[in-house]
Amino acid sequence: MATIKRTEISSLGEFGLIDRLTQGLSLQNASSMLGPGDDAAILQPANTQVVTTDILVEGIHFDLVYTPLKHLGYKSVIVNLSDVYAMNAIPKQILVSIAISNRFSVEAVDEIYDGIKLACEKYQVDLVGGDTTASPKGLIINVVAIGEQHKDHIVRRSTANEGDILCVSGDLGGAYMGLQMLQREKQVFLNAPEANVELEGNDYIVGRQLKPEARKDIIEFFEAENIIPTSMIDISDGLSSEILHLCKQSNMGCQLNEAGVPIANETYNKALEFGIDPINCALSGGEDYELLFTIDKKDADKINHHPDISVIGEMLDANLGVKLYTKGGNYHDIISLGWDGLKDE
Amino acid sequence: MATIKRTEISSLGEFGLIDRLTQGLSLQNASSMLGPGDDAAILQPANTQVVTTDILVEGIHFDLVYTPLKHLGYKSVIVNLSDVYAMNAIPKQILVSIAISNRFSVEAVDEIYDGIKLACEKYQVDLVGGDTTASPKGLIINVVAIGEQHKDHIVRRSTANEGDILCVSGDLGGAYMGLQMLQREKQVFLNAPEANVELEGNDYIVGRQLKPEARKDIIEFFEAENIIPTSMIDISDGLSSEILHLCKQSNMGCQLNEAGVPIANETYNKALEFGIDPINCALSGGEDYELLFTIDKKDADKINHHPDISVIGEMLDANLGVKLYTKGGNYHDIISLGWDGLKDE
Repeated sequence: MATIKRTEISSLGEFGLIDRLTQGLSLQNASSMLGPGDDAAILQPANTQVVTTDILVEGIHFDLVYTPLKHLGYKSVIVNLSDVYAMNAIPKQILVSIAISNRFSVEAVDEIYDGIKLACEKYQVDLVGGDTTASPKGLIINVVAIGEQHKDHIVRRSTANEGDILCVSGDLGGAYMGLQMLQREKQVFLNAPEANVELEGNDYIVGRQLKPEARKDIIEFFEAENIIPTSMIDISDGLSSEILHLCKQSNMGCQLNEAGVPIANETYNKALEFGIDPINCALSGGEDYELLFTIDKKDADKINHHPDISVIGEMLDANLGVKLYTKGGNYHDIISLGWDGLKDE
Repeated sequence: MATIKRTEISSLGEFGLIDRLTQGLSLQNASSMLGPGDDAAILQPANTQVVTTDILVEGIHFDLVYTPLKHLGYKSVIVNLSDVYAMNAIPKQILVSIAISNRFSVEAVDEIYDGIKLACEKYQVDLVGGDTTASPKGLIINVVAIGEQHKDHIVRRSTANEGDILCVSGDLGGAYMGLQMLQREKQVFLNAPEANVELEGNDYIVGRQLKPEARKDIIEFFEAENIIPTSMIDISDGLSSEILHLCKQSNMGCQLNEAGVPIANETYNKALEFGIDPINCALSGGEDYELLFTIDKKDADKINHHPDISVIGEMLDANLGVKLYTKGGNYHDIISLGWDGLKDE
């Protein structure tokens, strides 16, 4: 077995660690005037900005038993970029705060930052600042993402209109089934460390959970096709929860057609294996980071041939409520069973 | 004894809690276009921006045995505003992420937010977004602050020149002695809960630790007097550490005159009582949130009569090193013993 190098964070100190982590960083975007190293970063945005932040806490949002640190760093950026894209904006900068206990080595922090930097490269985002500190226990990552867009092209949750078409990118429920797989195999491993952990053949759903992507391509497609969605939100807490947000803030009702909800084969089959109705994975499973949006009917033809956009319903008068129209021809009220880290399970 | 109401966070859930905390928030600054409630806040900065973030972790940065939650919320904002002022910029927006365990009630979170909102009012800053989540243990607060300033007026750490006058606002070492007091009285209390905790007569230093302010007034003074410091940094880790940053990034040496370093009487006397050399409180004690800056000699007359700015030294060629000139007439190299949460004590 190869020896793994372990350098204690205390041997570098805060400033030494920050120097190491920000070494060789270069700024790609015109609006990034000054990166890490001063009291604050300096930005010169050419357009209206959007700003969002998300905090990820060990034991709540991730389990390091099955989450590689590099994937964790990557995902911590993606969840924030997804919020920027959900405003129809282009992410330009991130700031990263990490609190970490001394159970982690410098090499472990390097792994997290390798994931963060990989996401920055892939999405052309500049890491311009942050904070690094000790934690008495566990790992906490807070990421801030800043994006830009012309103010008339920024899309809110609150502006859907009656008759608009409800659409979603990609497929849903995969990240949730990936999490179920990982948690089951963790139990198998804890009960019998010599047993084989069976993740093979589940690459798609496990990847959806551990290494999600943000839908940059959809925002680029909107730009190319001259589409401005009438409202948009990203799916982090499950389709039900996000539809309810969109309807509430737009003061609209909605009909969601079960038959239209995109579910990948692997997700579908794994749900059945676990005894879960696949539509419930899509409705209540979180962390897919797909985009839920509404468009004006006049734009319907533009999206019809996009292989990765599904029409899933229509916006209605608020009095008609928020309904799921099932494959069996019944209507059900949509209620939120979305993942909610602050509510008792 | 009055009954204290305790509402479990789980009874509200994440969205219920966020609704409660952001209720009645109004936006004061022209550049704040949209506050909490969407995937991201929307900003329309009229000027160049500065962005900074700081994470505060229970057990590392604060001890809830002697830190009132409202003060903690207030301080978590101040430490970030101080970084914005240190760029000679005016803070406009903050975003706040909180991770909190179920040992805290909704009323406890209200207290934290009361402090956050008080700081927002006092410093005319808008709370435009954030994240609220569970934590398995303890309390973590991450604040992001965004400020604005004309790009030619933004002041970095790296631009001090030979011959510039080194200045500091306020007085130093008070927050450190306040912390020593609080920690001593905590021990007294833990050893004998019936003993009297003696914080009376120490209001100034205890206040410096628990409820610091950021030097908005100094930035306004610069503006009124047409002064642009040649470099600036805020004092969060102790004077030594900050002088070393300023010198390193400006590629300068410096002579710091011990006789010029401002120390309040209460700090001075308490240091002697604790058997600490008062100058060491100023050099190595953190969390004063004063401004350390350099100005061109031509501006010397403008600051001479300011009651709360002290001239403490002069910038020199890098080859002359970074030296403390003691009251006794000796030169010592300045080394950083600043507080560093990641280094072994």
